[in-house]
Amino acid sequence: MQTYHAPLRDMRFALHELHDSAALARLPGLEEATPDLLDTILEEAAKITAEQLLPINASGDAEGCRFEDGVVTTPAGFKEAYAAFVQGGWGALAADPKYGGQGLPQCIAKCVEEMICGSNLAFGLYPGLSHGAYLALESYGSDALKDFYLPRLVDGSWAGTMCLTEPHCGTDLGMLKTRAVPQADGSYRITGSKIFISAGEHDLTENIVHLVLARLPDAPSGIKGISLFLVPKFLPNPDGSLGARNGVQCTGIEHKMGIKASATCQMSFDEATGWMVGEPNKGMRAMFVMMNSERLSVGTQGLGVGEAAYQSAVAYARERIQGRSLSGAKNPGKPADPIIVHPDVRRMLLTARAYNEGCRALCVWVANALDRMQRLPPGPEREEAEDFVALMTPVVKAFFTDLGYETASQCLQIYGGHGYIVGNGMEQYVRDVRIAMIYEGTNGVQALDLVGRKMPVNFGRSLRRFFHPVAEFIDAHAEDGDVKALVQPFSRAFGALQLATAFIAQKGLADPEEAGAAASDYLRLFGLVALGFMWIRSAKVAAGKLAGGGLSDEDASFYRAKIATATFYVERILPQAGALLYAIKAGKGSTMALEAAAF
Amino acid sequence: MQTYHAPLRDMRFALHELHDSAALARLPGLEEATPDLLDTILEEAAKITAEQLLPINASGDAEGCRFEDGVVTTPAGFKEAYAAFVQGGWGALAADPKYGGQGLPQCIAKCVEEMICGSNLAFGLYPGLSHGAYLALESYGSDALKDFYLPRLVDGSWAGTMCLTEPHCGTDLGMLKTRAVPQADGSYRITGSKIFISAGEHDLTENIVHLVLARLPDAPSGIKGISLFLVPKFLPNPDGSLGARNGVQCTGIEHKMGIKASATCQMSFDEATGWMVGEPNKGMRAMFVMMNSERLSVGTQGLGVGEAAYQSAVAYARERIQGRSLSGAKNPGKPADPIIVHPDVRRMLLTARAYNEGCRALCVWVANALDRMQRLPPGPEREEAEDFVALMTPVVKAFFTDLGYETASQCLQIYGGHGYIVGNGMEQYVRDVRIAMIYEGTNGVQALDLVGRKMPVNFGRSLRRFFHPVAEFIDAHAEDGDVKALVQPFSRAFGALQLATAFIAQKGLADPEEAGAAASDYLRLFGLVALGFMWIRSAKVAAGKLAGGGLSDEDASFYRAKIATATFYVERILPQAGALLYAIKAGKGSTMALEAAAF
Repeated sequence: MQTYHAPLRDMRFALHELHDSAALARLPGLEEATPDLLDTILEEAAKITAEQLLPINASGDAEGCRFEDGVVTTPAGFKEAYAAFVQGGWGALAADPKYGGQGLPQCIAKCVEEMICGSNLAFGLYPGLSHGAYLALESYGSDALKDFYLPRLVDGSWAGTMCLTEPHCGTDLGMLKTRAVPQADGSYRITGSKIFISAGEHDLTENIVHLVLARLPDAPSGIKGISLFLVPKFLPNPDGSLGARNGVQCTGIEHKMGIKASATCQMSFDEATGWMVGEPNKGMRAMFVMMNSERLSVGTQGLGVGEAAYQSAVAYARERIQGRSLSGAKNPGKPADPIIVHPDVRRMLLTARAYNEGCRALCVWVANALDRMQRLPPGPEREEAEDFVALMTPVVKAFFTDLGYETASQCLQIYGGHGYIVGNGMEQYVRDVRIAMIYEGTNGVQALDLVGRKMPVNFGRSLRRFFHPVAEFIDAHAEDGDVKALVQPFSRAFGALQLATAFIAQKGLADPEEAGAAASDYLRLFGLVALGFMWIRSAKVAAGKLAGGGLSDEDASFYRAKIATATFYVERILPQAGALLYAIKAGKGSTMALEAAAF
Repeated sequence: MQTYHAPLRDMRFALHELHDSAALARLPGLEEATPDLLDTILEEAAKITAEQLLPINASGDAEGCRFEDGVVTTPAGFKEAYAAFVQGGWGALAADPKYGGQGLPQCIAKCVEEMICGSNLAFGLYPGLSHGAYLALESYGSDALKDFYLPRLVDGSWAGTMCLTEPHCGTDLGMLKTRAVPQADGSYRITGSKIFISAGEHDLTENIVHLVLARLPDAPSGIKGISLFLVPKFLPNPDGSLGARNGVQCTGIEHKMGIKASATCQMSFDEATGWMVGEPNKGMRAMFVMMNSERLSVGTQGLGVGEAAYQSAVAYARERIQGRSLSGAKNPGKPADPIIVHPDVRRMLLTARAYNEGCRALCVWVANALDRMQRLPPGPEREEAEDFVALMTPVVKAFFTDLGYETASQCLQIYGGHGYIVGNGMEQYVRDVRIAMIYEGTNGVQALDLVGRKMPVNFGRSLRRFFHPVAEFIDAHAEDGDVKALVQPFSRAFGALQLATAFIAQKGLADPEEAGAAASDYLRLFGLVALGFMWIRSAKVAAGKLAGGGLSDEDASFYRAKIATATFYVERILPQAGALLYAIKAGKGSTMALEAAAF
């Protein structure tokens, strides 16, 4: 009962109509990324995800990964799907052509990621981790490491991981204990235990390249004494053929709530040979390259699963007949009407739709900035893009995954009791997407990143990268007949965000706990306003298209739906902004009042 | 890692200090139910749930029920726990002594139910269903049926079910197809298929008494042609020994997201012998006696699991060290502080705590009314209690289960990645409690019941049973130094509820879709205000106790925590009321705008 068709029409809207995809081809190195080419890639990606990934989503959940004697076996069909995936070059979309990548824009890579997550989240983690490892290595690895390992990560013959977490530390990596001892030949011997390592061991590739955080013998304590090492599962010979097995073993896999087809491994490093990536004690810097990219990807996971849940719920709501429309039978020849006639079912569907399309629009905006940041020469334009990406990364990670989970649960609800049954697919979405609120930094950590790092940096310069275009739009459209009914409540929500920002900036400066107590509510408020901005801009574009006329019936219906969904979002969801401002302005008092023993 | 201790102190607060438990013993038939007796029962219930039910909660989830050749086997330990449970008389607490029950007040039965659900939700469904069957039979069965069946349901030697749902109809029972053909001897032959039958088949009791909705041959179509029948698994001999197997079979059990130790059965009735309960075509009336009771119980499930998740999260947050307090190290001798120092962790814990204790207070208030309604002679006092219970039933069912699910998920979040791992117990809470938002009428159906039935009945008389005491409290305490800082924001939230009520009453009269589009937001608003009322009343009681002095350290800490949690609730959660009013007042326009095909 899992229904998923890549939302190509809405992706084209976000890419070409809302954000200016044609401008991408004016960026250095993206000359060939014309809108036509992007559309072709989207269509091809829709095919491979539909043909290869969707069919093994539910079966992969049911079967899960198996672990025996250090060997992890992925569920039936995963090996074949992975082979088809990398053969099609789908793991290499945004990678540098120098290493065999296709050099395509992040805009398109994020849309493809959304499709992968919508059709099979657990599968997507395997190439996703490889891409993260690629990024860290590309940014900080020596030329020798890069020339040898990157082509193999890019063509998918080898996979990558990021080995951060240890049993006693996840969020607080300063406590990590894994040790790296330098050897005479310039290599290191790595020893320690890691847990929660996605794709730490599997049968999809001939080799696995672990990026491992560890401490040098003389390293300072805490986060400033962590270095990054590359540790391959098999030590390669200079020609790339596999040599001896390295001292790294998978000692078990986790039994998890969801993403059961993704191997979450306990890894033991026992004097494993590795090579340093980047400088000694600067490992976190390299790891953050990977992590920031992963955080945007995890946000996309929330969106992908949310979209799949929505589509599945729409299909069910159109087909399941139960009760009569409150405004009179819509299906008089049948014993009942389809449940999509009921206002409360529509409320749930529209909430899901407003979240998904709003997140997609925002995702493409951020991906656009990612492309500018990666492609532009140094200068104010690039700095602006960098600021914007840094600001929005925690919002995309946390807000999108919160919404993806809420959406999956509401779409399950539409199925009634049938949504609770394994095999109908809906409960898998809820279980799968739940992890996205946790990994790559819990959503609470994202909120602290937003208020503690991103907000104050350069005296709020990053914030202005978002606030300025919003304020400009409000000014320009306050009297615009197309959207003024939406601009007024939206500007109220934006006002709440500005007040909350000022409150936290002032209070948090004197007392970081004030910022901490407000952080999650603030991130939610920020996300609500950011989606609101996407929605009023979408409504404006749609109104323009409808006014221009000459549209196909299908297009006219699409734009009318944009305006209706924008209205729903602004009227029925966005008012939460005001409540969040109230909560934030209450300050930390009641949050910090209880002694720990009184809980 | 599942931690659960029955929250006896807070139950005593709700029973004795917030609501007047001493008044219970002045009700006819409850003369012996003194506060001391109630406390003793709570302590005994805490023991049996800790000793018998909690130890088989996680193992029951891991093992699940097994189905083979029509036989359902419950997980290891369930049979023994059930035997101890019924031997202790725990299935008979609120049942009539005439049939072997203990005749105790609903107040105490609900507290015990909360403990059962907190320690083992799946287990609780078995005696829970029996009690529902008991109620329907007691209210509408013939004396012959009652005298024969009720003592066996009460002593737990036989179990009960409610067989409503069929594959093509759940919410819309008017479509049900199961047929009942009258026989010369006054019995009926029942034929049809039922699904989602909790406890439909199991190995806990020697016989199972199904209450089955079915149609007589000449029945009117729709909901007005449904009758209720009692269909035992084994046809009993007059002496109560088991005779022939009846024509009812379990044909399979569902594989579900959670409550895996509860058998959810597909049942096939093939000319099964049954007896009518109540009058022909009036089956829904009897079924609603059962359903209303079950709805309050399902609300209690949300609370019970929410409490267990909270306690487990507190235990983890005290023990897990990670990062430093933003106000300076609290644990300087260790490498990190316990995560309970972090404001965002406290935000999640306090939200859970505010929900749990608020729901418990409200639950006891409603149970008090249930006792008055069941015990008082006809007259205005009883009518008032009936109105209040009818009004609050959908709120308790939907709001408590929504909150229980949110709480379980937030408490999982506190565990970080460890919360996602099977065996650490947190993800089971999320999976288990998710069903409570669905069964016994989805939460959307509850919202429609609230706005469509409960709100308009007797020109809003039921509503006034809640609105009047709230308004009185606000008037009496607007200048009360103990609580005036809370009363002001609370009265704003209450004002929002009044405005929303007026809006829906007016709009919904002309157009039921307006009420339908507002229903879920309205129920949430209602619930938020009802919990707010419990919190300001709790704060008032606590302030009085603290002012009175002479408290033990433990009690003083308890009352201070009440005031702190009340403040947290009013400052940080209750402001959502205003946002919901905005959303409601937007009306149905954007909800109903899209054609079904445009979704």
